[in-house]
Amino acid sequence: MDRVACLFCRKSFPHDPFSPFCPDCSEPLFIDPAGLVRTPAIREERTHPLEAFADFLPLESFDPRLSLGEGRTPLVRLDAAGRRLGLTDVFAKAEAQNPTGSFKDRGTAVAIQKAVALGFRKVGTVSTGNMAASTAAYGARAGLETFVLLKEGTSQTSLRVAGIFGPRLVTVRGDYGRLFYESLRIGRELGVYFMNSIDPFRVEGYKVTGFEVFAGLGRRLPSHVFVPLSSGGHLIGLMRAYEDLERAGLAPGYPTFVGVQAEGCAPLAAAFEAGRPTYERLKEARTAAHAISNPAPPGGNAVLKMIRDRRGLIVAVSDEEMFAAQRELAAEEGVFCQPESAVTLAALAKLRAGGRLHGAGAKVLVLTGSGLKAPHALESLPLDVVETDMAGLEGRLGELVRPS
Amino acid sequence: MDRVACLFCRKSFPHDPFSPFCPDCSEPLFIDPAGLVRTPAIREERTHPLEAFADFLPLESFDPRLSLGEGRTPLVRLDAAGRRLGLTDVFAKAEAQNPTGSFKDRGTAVAIQKAVALGFRKVGTVSTGNMAASTAAYGARAGLETFVLLKEGTSQTSLRVAGIFGPRLVTVRGDYGRLFYESLRIGRELGVYFMNSIDPFRVEGYKVTGFEVFAGLGRRLPSHVFVPLSSGGHLIGLMRAYEDLERAGLAPGYPTFVGVQAEGCAPLAAAFEAGRPTYERLKEARTAAHAISNPAPPGGNAVLKMIRDRRGLIVAVSDEEMFAAQRELAAEEGVFCQPESAVTLAALAKLRAGGRLHGAGAKVLVLTGSGLKAPHALESLPLDVVETDMAGLEGRLGELVRPS
Repeated sequence: MDRVACLFCRKSFPHDPFSPFCPDCSEPLFIDPAGLVRTPAIREERTHPLEAFADFLPLESFDPRLSLGEGRTPLVRLDAAGRRLGLTDVFAKAEAQNPTGSFKDRGTAVAIQKAVALGFRKVGTVSTGNMAASTAAYGARAGLETFVLLKEGTSQTSLRVAGIFGPRLVTVRGDYGRLFYESLRIGRELGVYFMNSIDPFRVEGYKVTGFEVFAGLGRRLPSHVFVPLSSGGHLIGLMRAYEDLERAGLAPGYPTFVGVQAEGCAPLAAAFEAGRPTYERLKEARTAAHAISNPAPPGGNAVLKMIRDRRGLIVAVSDEEMFAAQRELAAEEGVFCQPESAVTLAALAKLRAGGRLHGAGAKVLVLTGSGLKAPHALESLPLDVVETDMAGLEGRLGELVRPS
Repeated sequence: MDRVACLFCRKSFPHDPFSPFCPDCSEPLFIDPAGLVRTPAIREERTHPLEAFADFLPLESFDPRLSLGEGRTPLVRLDAAGRRLGLTDVFAKAEAQNPTGSFKDRGTAVAIQKAVALGFRKVGTVSTGNMAASTAAYGARAGLETFVLLKEGTSQTSLRVAGIFGPRLVTVRGDYGRLFYESLRIGRELGVYFMNSIDPFRVEGYKVTGFEVFAGLGRRLPSHVFVPLSSGGHLIGLMRAYEDLERAGLAPGYPTFVGVQAEGCAPLAAAFEAGRPTYERLKEARTAAHAISNPAPPGGNAVLKMIRDRRGLIVAVSDEEMFAAQRELAAEEGVFCQPESAVTLAALAKLRAGGRLHGAGAKVLVLTGSGLKAPHALESLPLDVVETDMAGLEGRLGELVRPS
């Protein structure tokens, strides 16, 4: 039986898949590391990352049939961006190269292993995008009945990209923030394991990305890790990875984590700036960064505590900075990510320009999803297309080439 | 200096990047394996596949700065599809998990290494889709001026998905088949290396997928490899990988390769069925399988020869079979690929139903690209969305759950 613990009151409880919140503090519960292997080892020779980092994960066994080949994503050097910013070691962790095109697969993979191990036949999630497709894909692979609850007005594209996996799609009118909690209550009634954004096992899956970064840097600690910040689950998972490495004596120190929000929906950046331990729920979001637009992030106060305890930062960037960074990553580095992933580069540039970032050590940008997930973001792209017929082609190309 | 050889007259020539066709036979030239390492070894401990399989590739060195983290894609078991077809070992090679979402990155990665090694400052390609984005991405990463020539009427989405990397986009009115050859002629005049679909170095890159399949099966040969068939470059590269393994004494035998076309544009399947050594160019294509719709494939006769010599097969499937297979892969296996990739599963099912496929050995489907590349294909998907308000949610879900 897994145990979960509260970051605030430190109390530990037996894990209840339908109630991932502390009965005293109402804050999210995470897997209690006391239950993991005492002297864990990294086994890089094992092919699958859930096996390579098995000692750090609360899985009794790993069933490869449930995997879609998640993880082992590239750590790509960003030399052009580095040069521009006067930094020598900038990297992107390319999470778009996961099976459904986003980091969500990391968490879903672990939660699905657990769901099957616990005997669940029904799973679900509450999502507007990447998590819907990811949960539907892994649910289909495991042969589970899968329920995807979405906000009324979710785009046809999002519905179809999840719908092709054959889940039950349900759009719900009403307060989307409340739907998160309602799904857990109803899940208990109907026996549906809702693996939502801060599900403890999902968060464990995000740890693996952190371990891979450490291994990919030759078992060196990065100096800074930049992560888009929405519900909080992803950032918490990455931070927990480095706590595990520290506890195991494998890493001498701790990176500076930088959670990045969009200015139009930045409740955590606002609380961090004001030095408040808890955030104020926003009434509305005004940003094109839909994938990280969360006015009431369920892991928000836990993020604030962890970032404060670990001397991290939470910053916000504008939509303009985000889209500019998305284009820079594509045109300078050949990396096409979701606009919401590019907030990491925008934040790096902002901290660097403000003199708030020293140059030593590796800066890692966690690029959470594929640009193909957000075709709408391309529509504002200035597009310069030359038109010609075959006879005129040579002349037109001759005019275009730069003199060498 | 690399040497290239003609499959037909067996003559060997010094490689000329602007003239990849045999002066005698007019057929495409490929890298002459006589120039490679005599006793090549697989070095799986090396992280990057271009290093792990370096002995088999015509690269003097490997510059990791030019890489986007291509390759090492998952080999995913397809147990549900296997059960349905009475087969125990069916696998998908998930090429969608390459940096720009398709197998093209394999070839572009090698061609770009070569372009930089040869001192080119300008590269280009002729494409309608995946190859445009791939070449633009790698060109941007290498800091090269990149020219993407497209058919008049190319969709705005395709233009933008390549355009974000900042290449010169040129749409050309006129015969698209002729554009392939025109680009090479003009490239010589202007010093632009056009790495088109059957470029010899591009084809070498596709070999790596074949090596990875072999390594992923524990250095066993698959019995069958299914590949979508368009220009012919991808299939030729995969087949050459197994010729390399055979020549090196690493693999005792040779798989059955199955090239798969769409019925509405199947010039090679028609020639194969009729036992003709050369294909007849089609006047028009009538298929929704745009990514493999090539009425005049430049590698077509080479494919026919290699398939005949190696006792392979070329089959065609209908658009309906293709879309059905795409949905099966998603709903049964959790794998969302381009419809054109799913022709491989449709062909496997067709051969199995026709009694033309024995059950022993691993059947590998090379899934060439991401479903996110073809959002239009989702529009015909039957989409069943349940709508409710928060108060009605529990009741609606209760009606939906299957009794356990």
